Amino acid sequence: MRAHTEYLTFHTQKKRELVHLTPKLEQILAKSAVSEGLMLVSAMHITAGVFVNDDESGLHADIWEWLEHLAPARSDYRHHLTGEDNGDAHLKSMLVHHEVIVPVTKGRLDLGPWQRVFYAEFDGQRDKRLVVKVMGE
Amino acid sequence: MRAHTEYLTFHTQKKRELVHLTPKLEQILAKSAVSEGLMLVSAMHITAGVFVNDDESGLHADIWEWLEHLAPARSDYRHHLTGEDNGDAHLKSMLVHHEVIVPVTKGRLDLGPWQRVFYAEFDGQRDKRLVVKVMGE
Amino acid sequence: MRAHTEYLTFHTQKKRELVHLTPKLEQILAKSAVSEGLMLVSAMHITAGVFVNDDESGLHADIWEWLEHLAPARSDYRHHLTGEDNGDAHLKSMLVHHEVIVPVTKGRLDLGPWQRVFYAEFDGQRDKRLVVKVMGE
Repeated sequence: MRAHTEYLTFHTQKKRELVHLTPKLEQILAKSAVSEGLMLVSAMHITAGVFVNDDESGLHADIWEWLEHLAPARSDYRHHLTGEDNGDAHLKSMLVHHEVIVPVTKGRLDLGPWQRVFYAEFDGQRDKRLVVKVMGE
Repeated sequence: MRAHTEYLTFHTQKKRELVHLTPKLEQILAKSAVSEGLMLVSAMHITAGVFVNDDESGLHADIWEWLEHLAPARSDYRHHLTGEDNGDAHLKSMLVHHEVIVPVTKGRLDLGPWQRVFYAEFDGQRDKRLVVKVMGE
Repeated sequence: MRAHTEYLTFHTQKKRELVHLTPKLEQILAKSAVSEGLMLVSAMHITAGVFVNDDESGLHADIWEWLEHLAPARSDYRHHLTGEDNGDAHLKSMLVHHEVIVPVTKGRLDLGPWQRVFYAEFDGQRDKRLVVKVMGE
């Protein structure tokens, strides 16, 4: 069994931003030399998410509006009594989820025709890390 | 390490439908000859989901009503400017999630007494694929 | 490849409760002798969840309020026609998700500085099980 681990760091210009990861993940897979297995893509912060969906800007705008509706930025979260102001980012992370597993088959990310992997930053403008772990043989 | 991969295709009669996968997954596990490991069950489309819950028709009706409340079909999604009309299906997919990992122990899917695996179609009536990957030994 | 499986049983005092799992998971990892791989942490009941977030009591109060808002306890779920009264617990489980995968690197749970793993009980005061499976080498 092979295991290959890489860490990516994001420092987004905006507080909330989507970063398309698929091309970078394909490079990491090539380095791993794994042809059959799984790739875990997991945010290491609790105010970010990782998801699989379409790379379409209109949909991305819909996703942001939807997340803001279901997990809105508010001043009165109890979490803010600690001095933080990112309560909504924690809830958005729970909603989107912080990780995905991508199957690896015949040396390729075994994604459907429209599936792309995104990092979702909910509290950016500072260094945030993500771990990519490929396991298989 | 063994890896065994199969692809299932669904073509549901209705636009929105749940398909109970557990019996089929047990067959795939038997073919894989894996006794200790993991099974990834992952929709390959971005308008479908996979989840684990109870096989109870009243609950399923509750789930559909709940999904429609939190990620409603609407005409005014920006995604529809591309000509699509399935914006809600993308959001429902994000909410439900497109994949689950089922543990495999002693050659069995290591599910709890009421846990069953479902494919959730949010934009059907056409061929949609799902990948099942078993890894272990 | 090594695989190590343990089952944890929870019997919470309250109907809804969070249990911090990380210290217990570190003990299980040590017993597994896996240094590179993945740990699956998966509730075996359909009225519970597992998630990764911050161990901060204000945030936890926000999470409970948020879950109750998005998946409220109601008397009129169709699932209750079976005699159950926990429809909301099933929906909360779908929202939070019932499992996480934690990467294992150099013999440690490869979590970010604030990431902690929680078991979320939505219908407790009775025995509920969770499976932890470590795979790797």
